[in-house]
Amino acid sequence: MTAKIARFLEDTQPPTPCLVVDLDVVEESYRTLRTVLPLARIFYAVKANPAAPILDRLNGLGSSFDTASRGEIEMCLRAGATPDRISFGNTIKKERDIAFAYEAGVRLFAFDSAAELAKIAAAAPGAKVFCRILVECEGAEWPLSKKFGCSPEMAVELLSAARDLGLDPYGVSFHVGSQQTNLGQWDSAVGRAAAMFSVLAERDIALKMVNLGGGFPAHYRQGVEPIERYADVVMTAITTHFGNDLPEIIIEPGRSMVGDAGVIQSEVVLISTKEIGDEKRWVYLDVGKFGGLAETMDEAIKYKLRTPHDGQVGGPIVLAGPTCDSADILYEKTEYEMPFALKIGDKVEILSTGAYTSTYSAVCFNGFEPLRTYCI
Amino acid sequence: MTAKIARFLEDTQPPTPCLVVDLDVVEESYRTLRTVLPLARIFYAVKANPAAPILDRLNGLGSSFDTASRGEIEMCLRAGATPDRISFGNTIKKERDIAFAYEAGVRLFAFDSAAELAKIAAAAPGAKVFCRILVECEGAEWPLSKKFGCSPEMAVELLSAARDLGLDPYGVSFHVGSQQTNLGQWDSAVGRAAAMFSVLAERDIALKMVNLGGGFPAHYRQGVEPIERYADVVMTAITTHFGNDLPEIIIEPGRSMVGDAGVIQSEVVLISTKEIGDEKRWVYLDVGKFGGLAETMDEAIKYKLRTPHDGQVGGPIVLAGPTCDSADILYEKTEYEMPFALKIGDKVEILSTGAYTSTYSAVCFNGFEPLRTYCI
Repeated sequence: MTAKIARFLEDTQPPTPCLVVDLDVVEESYRTLRTVLPLARIFYAVKANPAAPILDRLNGLGSSFDTASRGEIEMCLRAGATPDRISFGNTIKKERDIAFAYEAGVRLFAFDSAAELAKIAAAAPGAKVFCRILVECEGAEWPLSKKFGCSPEMAVELLSAARDLGLDPYGVSFHVGSQQTNLGQWDSAVGRAAAMFSVLAERDIALKMVNLGGGFPAHYRQGVEPIERYADVVMTAITTHFGNDLPEIIIEPGRSMVGDAGVIQSEVVLISTKEIGDEKRWVYLDVGKFGGLAETMDEAIKYKLRTPHDGQVGGPIVLAGPTCDSADILYEKTEYEMPFALKIGDKVEILSTGAYTSTYSAVCFNGFEPLRTYCI
Repeated sequence: MTAKIARFLEDTQPPTPCLVVDLDVVEESYRTLRTVLPLARIFYAVKANPAAPILDRLNGLGSSFDTASRGEIEMCLRAGATPDRISFGNTIKKERDIAFAYEAGVRLFAFDSAAELAKIAAAAPGAKVFCRILVECEGAEWPLSKKFGCSPEMAVELLSAARDLGLDPYGVSFHVGSQQTNLGQWDSAVGRAAAMFSVLAERDIALKMVNLGGGFPAHYRQGVEPIERYADVVMTAITTHFGNDLPEIIIEPGRSMVGDAGVIQSEVVLISTKEIGDEKRWVYLDVGKFGGLAETMDEAIKYKLRTPHDGQVGGPIVLAGPTCDSADILYEKTEYEMPFALKIGDKVEILSTGAYTSTYSAVCFNGFEPLRTYCI
């Protein structure tokens, strides 16, 4: 929680629940990433938080943008981003949306399948394409399943096919998993990518780019290594596997760029127990899983919390949201404590909630309005 | 899928994804429930689907409404519902929202804790209150955890306290779990409620109402007993445990009222495999977990699907949504098959999706618009 956010909350007393994003923290994250990874081009993962003031600020700093949909491309263009700084990074696109992007000047597209490649060839002739490969995600707090990517063997065939389809087989991407805490994952993933450069070189295809995806962390409850360590590991992996012949490097930070910039303020709606004499209190906030905190699914992301009584003696709690849905529990298995002095009407802040919150918010579930965002 | 919905889709060709609700099916569900449970007052669970035409139609039929928030109360009032037909059924309410409801004329409130009771006493003096008790949910496809309700022992003390606070200790509610397939659960739950009537009678408190909550099913992939069987079981439980002295009976159907009335139409965006020679195809639709299908969380609700090629030979698939979120997979462990003839651009219908879909939809996740609803 920055002084600026604290002052805003104090002066404005906005209705809860709300998300407040400090744009200076976003800028600082961007500048830090530029400093620690000077060779990488930063494509901000718009899906993490597409609020217009965030896109405006990053655009002013010269950032590029990784987009998931036509809607996100439009947001970036509105922020003034030139199409050469926009990547259409979703591997699942409607052909008409590819055509829209191409019309708008976008020339960089992700894919991981033959069918997607055919769509891109039809709707975006000559475009640069990169193939997403499957890598290990172990150690990620929000791991990635097999939804995206294909086997490296298949990727080799697809990148060859890309050339035959008149596309520019530009590079390889991977994603080690969001909020990745096992730094070793980058070395093996970069190794896989480098191997593909070699194999394709034998077919006279010169790949040019490695897209390292995201995975850099925000600061949740569990400690993480400093961003400099992440940068070190990444650059060591690149130089180990590519030697002097460094490829273009792209990173797609989302969580690490805006996560720590945001704070959700909520109000305690109810504190109760289920049986006479229960030790464990249930604390119900006016924000929950369907109001923006979807990443508490399976209690995956464990946010830091702040109450007005921190430091005073407390006890274990279950933390839940305000809807009539039983799935709307934030933390039940994970051990959280809150001061006994906590009372109904108190404000509770949920820290590092700038990423993957506001847009996840349900339209109107249980008649509650979506999470409001203030960018300051 | 009704003929009316099929015709609408055919004639209108609405952009996908979209939800189409046949209001005649809603009306039929209401009338059927009235017929099979003539002694029960129906409070439609607005959270299941608060679309204005649904509320209008049900209001015209004389339905009452179970609401979760100030927002939902306002929707019901706009639909013309009189406040005596509105229950504020969420046990987690801000005191100012209770005051709003009371001002609007609402006199029936749920609670399950001492703190909530104090709020109601302060903001809605003299109101009728019912206490939600914890019961077994085993057998429910969308079970309810301990988020709502308290132990019957605690409920007895709270209902006594209600009288002392100047409130009208009106009754008891429970919920056996949504999409409950074990009909035996109602007997034990009603037994618990009846026991509370006896215990409180000894304290000269005459409870008057049993609120049976929801739990009646919609028609998903797994077969369910006909609604008449549910009604039989419920009424047998009531007469078994209450004898001649029947209480007022309230039910709060949501899923069973609107679930089967709705169909989501989506488009196939991509069909792919992850490795060369893979048997299992990945089928990506333009609607997913964050576009309204939140109840596929942990693959809990298993919808019936329709493709243009049904009946032709097919094979196993993984079904996923269009966002860049790896959690956006609908069915991976659950075995689903689709015809080999299925191709990109085909329309796929997801049946019985009238409940718990549209309002769950994310505001703008990944830049995708929320699910559009057409009530016809």
